Amino acid sequence: MVRVSMSEPKVWKTFVSSVTALIEEAAFVFSPEGVRMKAMDPSKISLVEFELSPKAFDEFNVKEKTVVGIKLTEFERALSRMKSKDQLILDVDTEKNRLNLVFKGASTRRLGIPLLSMEEEELPEPKLSFAAKVVVRAEVLKDGLKDAEMIAENVRLSADKKSFSLTAESDRGSSELVLSTGDEGLISLEVSEPATAIYSVRYLKDMTSGASASDNITLKFSTDLPLEIDFNVENGKFRYLLAPRVEA
Amino acid sequence: MVRVSMSEPKVWKTFVSSVTALIEEAAFVFSPEGVRMKAMDPSKISLVEFELSPKAFDEFNVKEKTVVGIKLTEFERALSRMKSKDQLILDVDTEKNRLNLVFKGASTRRLGIPLLSMEEEELPEPKLSFAAKVVVRAEVLKDGLKDAEMIAENVRLSADKKSFSLTAESDRGSSELVLSTGDEGLISLEVSEPATAIYSVRYLKDMTSGASASDNITLKFSTDLPLEIDFNVENGKFRYLLAPRVEA
Amino acid sequence: MVRVSMSEPKVWKTFVSSVTALIEEAAFVFSPEGVRMKAMDPSKISLVEFELSPKAFDEFNVKEKTVVGIKLTEFERALSRMKSKDQLILDVDTEKNRLNLVFKGASTRRLGIPLLSMEEEELPEPKLSFAAKVVVRAEVLKDGLKDAEMIAENVRLSADKKSFSLTAESDRGSSELVLSTGDEGLISLEVSEPATAIYSVRYLKDMTSGASASDNITLKFSTDLPLEIDFNVENGKFRYLLAPRVEA
Repeated sequence: MVRVSMSEPKVWKTFVSSVTALIEEAAFVFSPEGVRMKAMDPSKISLVEFELSPKAFDEFNVKEKTVVGIKLTEFERALSRMKSKDQLILDVDTEKNRLNLVFKGASTRRLGIPLLSMEEEELPEPKLSFAAKVVVRAEVLKDGLKDAEMIAENVRLSADKKSFSLTAESDRGSSELVLSTGDEGLISLEVSEPATAIYSVRYLKDMTSGASASDNITLKFSTDLPLEIDFNVENGKFRYLLAPRVEA
Repeated sequence: MVRVSMSEPKVWKTFVSSVTALIEEAAFVFSPEGVRMKAMDPSKISLVEFELSPKAFDEFNVKEKTVVGIKLTEFERALSRMKSKDQLILDVDTEKNRLNLVFKGASTRRLGIPLLSMEEEELPEPKLSFAAKVVVRAEVLKDGLKDAEMIAENVRLSADKKSFSLTAESDRGSSELVLSTGDEGLISLEVSEPATAIYSVRYLKDMTSGASASDNITLKFSTDLPLEIDFNVENGKFRYLLAPRVEA
Repeated sequence: MVRVSMSEPKVWKTFVSSVTALIEEAAFVFSPEGVRMKAMDPSKISLVEFELSPKAFDEFNVKEKTVVGIKLTEFERALSRMKSKDQLILDVDTEKNRLNLVFKGASTRRLGIPLLSMEEEELPEPKLSFAAKVVVRAEVLKDGLKDAEMIAENVRLSADKKSFSLTAESDRGSSELVLSTGDEGLISLEVSEPATAIYSVRYLKDMTSGASASDNITLKFSTDLPLEIDFNVENGKFRYLLAPRVEA
């Protein structure tokens, strides 16, 4: 039996929106320890991970591990019907094979979406050590990515002991975001050796879309190796891995 | 001669917008008793009725009954040019065969739209008695309809002595709005015998679009019979009849 | 060397947006006297002129006349990335053949767009004297143009000693804006002899789009001759000439 309730359900909406572009179907694992979701996109370029502790819920009725398979576009569409002050109840109806979303506000509304038969995926977790660890304000990173998007499909991330930069270059022009130690937008910078690698702008945009403007985002990367993106929300955690692009 | 003026013309705009999707051309009947419009949509599924008393106007210069035929999309487009603080004057120019909309604000602007040659329609008024009469807050009803729209084209309305519900069901999932006696969104519920019927979501959305969030909407229906929708605005009245859908 | 900086860069954004629809490429001339741009649209129907004094800049480092050729859609797209509180630095990089836009705010971001090889155009300046000079509030003029746009592609401007009007007529209906002496939206009216001429609504809309609602716009015209449109912004000037349309 799974029946959980949240009076601050924004984190769900945010997470689902941020992964809809990456993954089609997701297996949310509800267990007495909380909710987690971990998946790779079909092209195996990225890994997405989401965790929410039972503390994020007002009521958390989960007796045993239950895998809830959902088509993400349908989950997103249903969540979009939630009003800002609504309480959200998620209720798995195994009989009708549905996930019910109950919105409690001035009225009580219920939306049911079909459950997919899915198993929890066992995903290989690459062992990675990173040459650079950079913590930046989400707003600044997002602006840099939007700039880069105008110029090219890929963006170069670089870090040395003094600064972190995000640059794009094409015949359409160039874009550059530089954050140096002491800058307001750069929270911390730990670099064991200079690192530089290229990643997809679109994936980076999707992966950071769940963070609010004032959140801090941690980026870890090494030259030509995968990037890890992390950020925390209250009682929850977002984590992404993204493979580098190789220059043509 | 028809020349009327309103300093709160929002009701016109609202009404015209709400019926544009249902009816193409409308015959507004101006008379010393006020303005009324009554029409059926081309497929005869719905009947639309609108009445506005002379009190809704600052100036109401209507000497004799005059039928003003207008293409509603043109009326809507012209009304969309009105600014929020403008005074609206409607002026029938029989010589040039035009309805003039004069907007008085920081400037005086005039838009003229062609008059159509139309007669007032004699519409059969079905004698209906209703098993259920439900008064709901507009906002709540509209939310329920938007939920249903995601799921199906038709929605089932049901009422018994204790509750009113609006449900949709398809392979895309389900949606349900339940209002029980005592709920904030349910103003009153009078049910002589349980009633349930299916109606088009799109028509219901159009018919309730003229009501503001805080307005009360009256729904009257019986099992598998037409639905009547009513709501009042200051010095005016909206009324709709909608044929039921029969389940396949 | 050209390197200029503005803490109120809105005027650039406004100007570039207002001419993007008219002109594809523009040669901005930076000189110690300020910045100017003057161009005709490809069909030679309109002339566009823009001037900005060095006072509009916090820093104005221009040693000698430099022609900066830019594709306007690219300039507009880059300026759209500027945030409302950003300081804007424009920096011509002759080596990389780029105009750099540097946005300084919570972070420092740089966008580079390709320079085009362009010369300052020598444009014939028609000698014009005008029968009517009308100063109107921008907001009112813009409303009149939007009304006219619904009705026809062209609009008739007329002025006599007592009033200025803007009228459109087609089988879709009619629109009319009349401003008489004393009206709030009419700042001044000087008419040596009655004037009337027809101009393109779309061009007029583009040419006035750079003016804020409360700005005053000066219109000068004579019967069936070109129209001049002028308005000032702080430390700058917009000017347009537009050829009349001849009635079919």
